[in-house]
Amino acid sequence: MVNQQWVLAERPESYPQPSHFRMVRGDIPKLQSGKALVKTLYLGVAPVMLRYMRNDTAFEAPLEIGDLMMGRGVAQVLESDCPELPEGSVVQARIGWQEYALIDNAQRPTPFLLEHHDLPYSHGLSSLGPTGFTALIGLREIGALKYDDKILVSGAAGGVGSQVAQIAKALGASRVVGIAGGAEKCRLLVEQLGYDAAIDYKGSDLAEALQHHFPEGIDLFYDNVGGPVLDEVLARIRRRARIVICGSISEYLLPAEAQHRFKNLQQLGRQDARMEAFFVFDYGDQYSAYASELASWIRAGLLQPKEDISRGIESLPGALTDLYTGANIGARMVHVADPVSG
Amino acid sequence: MVNQQWVLAERPESYPQPSHFRMVRGDIPKLQSGKALVKTLYLGVAPVMLRYMRNDTAFEAPLEIGDLMMGRGVAQVLESDCPELPEGSVVQARIGWQEYALIDNAQRPTPFLLEHHDLPYSHGLSSLGPTGFTALIGLREIGALKYDDKILVSGAAGGVGSQVAQIAKALGASRVVGIAGGAEKCRLLVEQLGYDAAIDYKGSDLAEALQHHFPEGIDLFYDNVGGPVLDEVLARIRRRARIVICGSISEYLLPAEAQHRFKNLQQLGRQDARMEAFFVFDYGDQYSAYASELASWIRAGLLQPKEDISRGIESLPGALTDLYTGANIGARMVHVADPVSG
Repeated sequence: MVNQQWVLAERPESYPQPSHFRMVRGDIPKLQSGKALVKTLYLGVAPVMLRYMRNDTAFEAPLEIGDLMMGRGVAQVLESDCPELPEGSVVQARIGWQEYALIDNAQRPTPFLLEHHDLPYSHGLSSLGPTGFTALIGLREIGALKYDDKILVSGAAGGVGSQVAQIAKALGASRVVGIAGGAEKCRLLVEQLGYDAAIDYKGSDLAEALQHHFPEGIDLFYDNVGGPVLDEVLARIRRRARIVICGSISEYLLPAEAQHRFKNLQQLGRQDARMEAFFVFDYGDQYSAYASELASWIRAGLLQPKEDISRGIESLPGALTDLYTGANIGARMVHVADPVSG
Repeated sequence: MVNQQWVLAERPESYPQPSHFRMVRGDIPKLQSGKALVKTLYLGVAPVMLRYMRNDTAFEAPLEIGDLMMGRGVAQVLESDCPELPEGSVVQARIGWQEYALIDNAQRPTPFLLEHHDLPYSHGLSSLGPTGFTALIGLREIGALKYDDKILVSGAAGGVGSQVAQIAKALGASRVVGIAGGAEKCRLLVEQLGYDAAIDYKGSDLAEALQHHFPEGIDLFYDNVGGPVLDEVLARIRRRARIVICGSISEYLLPAEAQHRFKNLQQLGRQDARMEAFFVFDYGDQYSAYASELASWIRAGLLQPKEDISRGIESLPGALTDLYTGANIGARMVHVADPVSG
């Protein structure tokens, strides 16, 4: 049996393309002391991956050409010499783009067990994993969401954005408006993803739309996009507004000299507002509590995870590319294999 | 007896000038039910006043031409029908630019009593008033100062800035660097104001100086200036840095189209950092506690209030102008009268 693995073949200058990856076939690793051998069930893709590929992060060891592509997945523990990761359990961990991996509990970010076995394991890469936790942390811990906040979300059809409105409602929010690209996505925001209204940034003037939907201004902006959208929103924040910086996908691709220059940052001082970014892995000790809370909302029908699943490890590079072309809705992931039963 | 008052004569296009004010002479008001008649001892000036004058604030009722100029001062209660402001007490309150005023406890921001009578009343406009509270709140409540934070302060010779290093040290900080304009101010930062080093933004390349003083980056930036200085600092923040937006004096004078466009805001997301502004008057219920803490530091020699005092109400417009020309060091105020004794 072989272990199919995707390695980095080339650093992207702009969008990631399938040609930036190369598949290699290795052996399935042997169990080592203190480790667990896992079989990959699902692998997720995320906008931040471009930053790994370009060696453009402040917080990660660089990926070298030929290295196994980094990435998180859901995997079943086949054999274990690690008491925290018992045989038969299903974990969410950084396993890389491969079919089998050796992981251990000392690696960072720490693997975590999926505890809600009545729900699909794919949720470990949507609502019951860092994607969902990011939505929850951003709204509650960073955004300090209050009942009557007027909330705006950019990238509202994406992995995180597709959950923000529903989670905001579960936390008590009264009104959430989303921004997405295209009429079809905007229809989904309202019909399936819990948004009260949608703004199509491709088909409307954003400033006018914000004026229409937020005549008194914006209290909480959950931003997955950055750049000109963020700048336009800054012009319309209310006193003590909170801007949660979750991502800046609009800017990841741009060289420094082409990145947006913000003209409305003064608004932070004028409105006594806050803009804050965060790193979901800094909240690892809360994951179990977050997952239990989110799982209860899923069971109650308050939160419907939106997943966009391709089949087969060969589809990973294309799944990643989709994130940057605006093609995906919900949490983009790849189904690699079914669990071993028994 | 007359009550000399400064009223707004004209809205400034750029810097405030003495010609934007006109002195009028009214009667000393008669005590009214529920109010206190106070005699002004000191009046302070602050950068934000330009925003009142230009009707450019999000949080204040506009000043009309001919209106009494707004401003806070320290005053002695001569007669009172207000139990919270007893006769003989000394209060810090918004009394306006005049020699006598009627105030009450319902006005916002709420007047507060100066409780530390062993210390000069002028401190109510420096360390023991909103100026000092702003330094303390910004460092502790907003900046979440930690022992080993590498701290940078802009506008370090100003009313707030002149206290930030000393208060940071009292809170346990190990190293604070200040930015100011000119060799003389920079000398004072180090010799008198508790800074470990000073950067002269007029006489050095800021990027190089930041590289020199912060080879590993900046953890906490207390910003009184905004604009290009803030942008340059953004390029050098560390992970989970905190940027405290206290003021943006560099930008208040500029028309919207001339204001700085920030090229390094992406750094917030990259470094999981926070940028936050605040309004000292939102912390009114803590003033007494803050004043007691700061007074104890003054008595212990940890904090030496830096005050720049002119004499006579006629000197107010010039004192305000000084703030924008970079001429002042410390808290700029005017001594109007001595208290009535007995």
